[in-house]
Amino acid sequence: MARVEAEPGGPRRSGRRPAGSGTREAILDAARAAFTQRGYDGASIRQIAREASVDPALVHHYFGTKQGVFTEAMHFPFDPSVLVPEVLAGDRSQIGERLARLFLTIWEDEQARGPIVALIRSAVTNEQAATMLREFVSEALVARVARELDAPDAALRPPLVAAQLVGLALLRYVIKLEPLASADPETLVAAVAPTVQRYLTGDLGPG
Amino acid sequence: MARVEAEPGGPRRSGRRPAGSGTREAILDAARAAFTQRGYDGASIRQIAREASVDPALVHHYFGTKQGVFTEAMHFPFDPSVLVPEVLAGDRSQIGERLARLFLTIWEDEQARGPIVALIRSAVTNEQAATMLREFVSEALVARVARELDAPDAALRPPLVAAQLVGLALLRYVIKLEPLASADPETLVAAVAPTVQRYLTGDLGPG
Repeated sequence: MARVEAEPGGPRRSGRRPAGSGTREAILDAARAAFTQRGYDGASIRQIAREASVDPALVHHYFGTKQGVFTEAMHFPFDPSVLVPEVLAGDRSQIGERLARLFLTIWEDEQARGPIVALIRSAVTNEQAATMLREFVSEALVARVARELDAPDAALRPPLVAAQLVGLALLRYVIKLEPLASADPETLVAAVAPTVQRYLTGDLGPG
Repeated sequence: MARVEAEPGGPRRSGRRPAGSGTREAILDAARAAFTQRGYDGASIRQIAREASVDPALVHHYFGTKQGVFTEAMHFPFDPSVLVPEVLAGDRSQIGERLARLFLTIWEDEQARGPIVALIRSAVTNEQAATMLREFVSEALVARVARELDAPDAALRPPLVAAQLVGLALLRYVIKLEPLASADPETLVAAVAPTVQRYLTGDLGPG
């Protein structure tokens, strides 16, 4: 780790943040950026420390392992225990539109979509990140929503919604497939809302 | 590269395939397996050569760079110029069901879904692979389908279908989210067919 200091372009020791106020947050900000850009396997404690201008030992001190930083950094900027009841409350026939608009609104903000992009980038090649994504969808969304829905096949419904919304996030924000990537958010809300609505409350067909 | 031979568990030189009959295919098989399991960034020429029991120099000889192997290995096991007209032919009101069943049938075969899994795993962190996925969706599917569809917003329709189907493939085969992962294929065909149908021929709503 001492080699970092000798590298051209690396932070000077004097420029490093000390432990203490704001340092933990600075590390988490750097970690979120690193995981968002490079995924779990591509990011390293050393890079995160460099970008946060701290000694790598401090990252280990605060978070233990890379997995520890990842878990903390991936805290979503919204709390499903607050948002899910909000989406479920109100007219049940508009739930698809409310849910589609909620996600597209959050994702339009580049900072706010960091965790989902990071989680997608990481989960496709890293089993721990895949477990986090599974648990997030299963526990935070599926369990809560399924409990509220009075519909057959309640367990299959939220994962179908997740497949639609994660697929949209993947192609729009990660792969940047046109014309999806530059489409107006409200155009996409209108397009996917009936899908989300049917997956949650409608007929899933025979089979 | 010579170090490979000295590694424990590495192939013995005498066990290596010579150039010639079947070798090119053996390299492509090993490459498909490597890209499927580890994505573009995680796979290496050295590993691919080891798994194909050939000298790494032979991989370079046949395919040049890692990008060259990737492009060849990612040839899809189906030809869109044959399949798209088949799906578009026949009753237009059943096109969603035919397309959903076509993809789910291909993907149920672990070998056949290799390229889409490899492409998803690679495209999320690698710009060249993302370009390949964009071009595949845009040229092979979007252009062909949009040309045939007599509907407003024809350019947006196939990418919406792609978002749904790629999202389903991602959560079912890569992330393995239950109960999607173990759901009967026909249950999923029934669930997503109306979505695909609406994206291709139906009302995309205001916006």
